[in-house]
Amino acid sequence: MRAWRPLRKHLRDLDAVHRRWSSTKSSRNGIAALLNGVAVDDAADITVNGWVRSVRKQKKVAFAAIADGSTVTALQAVLKPEQAETLSTGVAVRLQGQWVKSPGGKQSHELQVSEVAVLGDNDAESNPIQPKYQTPEFLRTVPHLRARTPGNALILRLRSAVIGSLTRFFGEEGFVQCHTPVITSSDCEGAGEVFTISATPAKGSSNEKKQVEHFFKEPKYLTVSAQLHLEALSQAVDKVWTLSPTFRAEKSDTPRHLSEFYMLEAEQCFIADPDQMMDVVEHMLRAVATDLSTSAVYHELLASKDTHHADEVDVAIDSDILRQRWQGLQAADWPRVTYDSAIKVLEDANDARNSIFTIQPSYNDGLAAEHERYLASHVGKGSPIFITDYPVMQKPFYMSRSPDDPSKAECFDLLVPDLCELAGGSMREHNAEALRKAMEAKGVSGEGLEWYMDLRKYGSVKHGGFGLGFDRLICYLSGVGNLRDVVAFPRWAGRCEC
Amino acid sequence: MRAWRPLRKHLRDLDAVHRRWSSTKSSRNGIAALLNGVAVDDAADITVNGWVRSVRKQKKVAFAAIADGSTVTALQAVLKPEQAETLSTGVAVRLQGQWVKSPGGKQSHELQVSEVAVLGDNDAESNPIQPKYQTPEFLRTVPHLRARTPGNALILRLRSAVIGSLTRFFGEEGFVQCHTPVITSSDCEGAGEVFTISATPAKGSSNEKKQVEHFFKEPKYLTVSAQLHLEALSQAVDKVWTLSPTFRAEKSDTPRHLSEFYMLEAEQCFIADPDQMMDVVEHMLRAVATDLSTSAVYHELLASKDTHHADEVDVAIDSDILRQRWQGLQAADWPRVTYDSAIKVLEDANDARNSIFTIQPSYNDGLAAEHERYLASHVGKGSPIFITDYPVMQKPFYMSRSPDDPSKAECFDLLVPDLCELAGGSMREHNAEALRKAMEAKGVSGEGLEWYMDLRKYGSVKHGGFGLGFDRLICYLSGVGNLRDVVAFPRWAGRCEC
Repeated sequence: MRAWRPLRKHLRDLDAVHRRWSSTKSSRNGIAALLNGVAVDDAADITVNGWVRSVRKQKKVAFAAIADGSTVTALQAVLKPEQAETLSTGVAVRLQGQWVKSPGGKQSHELQVSEVAVLGDNDAESNPIQPKYQTPEFLRTVPHLRARTPGNALILRLRSAVIGSLTRFFGEEGFVQCHTPVITSSDCEGAGEVFTISATPAKGSSNEKKQVEHFFKEPKYLTVSAQLHLEALSQAVDKVWTLSPTFRAEKSDTPRHLSEFYMLEAEQCFIADPDQMMDVVEHMLRAVATDLSTSAVYHELLASKDTHHADEVDVAIDSDILRQRWQGLQAADWPRVTYDSAIKVLEDANDARNSIFTIQPSYNDGLAAEHERYLASHVGKGSPIFITDYPVMQKPFYMSRSPDDPSKAECFDLLVPDLCELAGGSMREHNAEALRKAMEAKGVSGEGLEWYMDLRKYGSVKHGGFGLGFDRLICYLSGVGNLRDVVAFPRWAGRCEC
Repeated sequence: MRAWRPLRKHLRDLDAVHRRWSSTKSSRNGIAALLNGVAVDDAADITVNGWVRSVRKQKKVAFAAIADGSTVTALQAVLKPEQAETLSTGVAVRLQGQWVKSPGGKQSHELQVSEVAVLGDNDAESNPIQPKYQTPEFLRTVPHLRARTPGNALILRLRSAVIGSLTRFFGEEGFVQCHTPVITSSDCEGAGEVFTISATPAKGSSNEKKQVEHFFKEPKYLTVSAQLHLEALSQAVDKVWTLSPTFRAEKSDTPRHLSEFYMLEAEQCFIADPDQMMDVVEHMLRAVATDLSTSAVYHELLASKDTHHADEVDVAIDSDILRQRWQGLQAADWPRVTYDSAIKVLEDANDARNSIFTIQPSYNDGLAAEHERYLASHVGKGSPIFITDYPVMQKPFYMSRSPDDPSKAECFDLLVPDLCELAGGSMREHNAEALRKAMEAKGVSGEGLEWYMDLRKYGSVKHGGFGLGFDRLICYLSGVGNLRDVVAFPRWAGRCEC
């Protein structure tokens, strides 16, 4: 057993490890837990880590606002003026002291500081993040730092809360969460501009000049949708979902498009019609909104206009509208309107009120953004609405035709007020011959899609699914008007900082 | 209000929607719920959807095994011979009947079928999935179909269960789940072969011949790690984690490497030393193993050798070893051994037993795979072990040096029996000047990393993190020996099916 001696000698003190873990747990939500009054007793001795948001020095006392990103609200630390000497905005600190009732009305408790340790200085002069109003446009140029602002940190926490809530929903509903591939052979929509990958050595590496043949023998692309792969997995375990990155190389420079974005996609077998898939979408979003309507993050969002944290992320709507959005998601019975009816609604609206649209609504041209906006705000009365049964010609090859009217696809789009299209879904053509014909009619080459057509040969069943723009959902839930402000490191044409 | 008429006319019967949703919920775990006896009463009339795994026709009665991917076990359907005429392996069916106690001992209940509907035929001759033993190597050539085999479907469900459990763990511990970018400017490790992306139009598109300038102005890469971006976000909200795809263009053709793989990464501020980060890793894996040790999926894994479902995914270990792995993860106090001690253990082992290693253990050369294997199986006694304090020269530029011994990095690797390295972590150098020197010493150009160095200028604090190979974790938890069998659509050099 000679070999064990050095080992035993070096084994750490595991008791200490457990002590440390327990103490970590008690402070696991940091300042948020303290301010919510759940973490500690009155007058307890505590340690707080965070960054100084502001310091106010008076003759006999100094106040520092300390934040750690766990909530938009800062903790009030009360110090002696000499203790505050080393403190300024942006400095990282560890403060020890007593957690006492606050005599002021602004907060219930404050930290009566006994000890101050500066953990990290702030080069205030060169710091792009300044303690003043800075435009969202400017903050987008420094994505590595902007999450430190309260509004941007709030969006990070919202995203996390929504992911958690969705994971619970799908788990309870028996959906299997899958990891679909990013590198793919096929272009799902058959049209989009895609990114191509190569194994060219990185700039500066010794192989830089060497020409490298295709790593995967043939050119491969960054996925534009997980749908096709999910369909394959759905035929194995029935209900599947994924939340994974997708890519478009479109040069569109709008607040509604990014080159890299997260899509929430689900597929399910053995369903009869798109209504069953709309049910999933509706119940999913209702579950998330209901679940999070009691969360801290929701109340912080509602207050963000008043606290001006909304300014950092370009929130144009006020808290009443935001509350309406969340209530609309929690409402029952979202309207399901056929495309034909929607066109009729638009035509009637136009007649009655004299050309309220720039583009005349027409069956053949599809719904323009202004039409979707009108429908979403006038039909749903606050809740989202589904538009169903679009003309086949407007939709991709994989959607099945309605048995009642083969000129219509068995499909739906989900529209929400202001933001318009949030999700889209359909039954997928599950008949091999019908799929082949649809591809031919749409001019989609079967190349690279042989495997997808294969799925129809072996016990193929009726199935359907949907895709939801996850970043758009975060926009809708937060009131943020631009995708670039809800994605931590947004990528769009010409822009890929960090 | 003329506009509303067509709308009202077309609004669906929403009562029907709710009825349908309720019925979906009751069958949301399909055959698994039925076999677990939680879904329905004895003698209830039920409908079952699934695929025929096998049919046994006798003179007066026929038996069909029906599976839907919700469990490896098939449901036994009892039919009249004439009802079974259209049934054969691979066919999709809907069966109605009575759920009755089974007279045989093999299952508690069986379906006494009253009605059969064939939903989808199977072209048995051309179907690559045949009702016989097929090698994992062969099944890898048809990833779009192989998930239909019970063993592969089980791995899908395991992955989903682990993601759910991790999401709960991190949520409870106050970690914020982040979506870090796939397209990046930098190469985290400073060495790896990376994939480069371009916006070249897809093959066959009308723009195919056109040369396209860089979409993002400069060449961009597929991320090799989320760590650097997570560090930025950690300085905003403290504890962060992500489970996201990462990429390496290495041409290694081994069971342990893929070109596209999921990494679980976490970062945390305000920690004093790597022990605190090892605590997170240890508690996280213990939480997952404990959580899932009562799950159906765990018991299906334990039985998979006996049911031969393990053969499809190349499980080489028996159920006792698999049980030991899970127990080891649930055990307390995983050994933490310094690199120096580990070398000593290896040297002593070698002395005592006469060259048991092909490569002689040496301080300078690092731990070879056989060394890691020895340490993992002899030191941990079933539980994982941490090897800590590696020489700085063996580790990347971003790891901080130990204050006690600057020749050592404040780091750890997590080794598990058989599989060896599962995770690695460290304190990150948080001092701007020390980081600059470390990059210089490692020959890492600062180009593209200016933003990362920036993080050290503004309230930089001690922080650390880790990365865990998520697909390797699935291998470890399932006993599967090859990453290609736990990833639904695996990509490696020359191989990117579908």
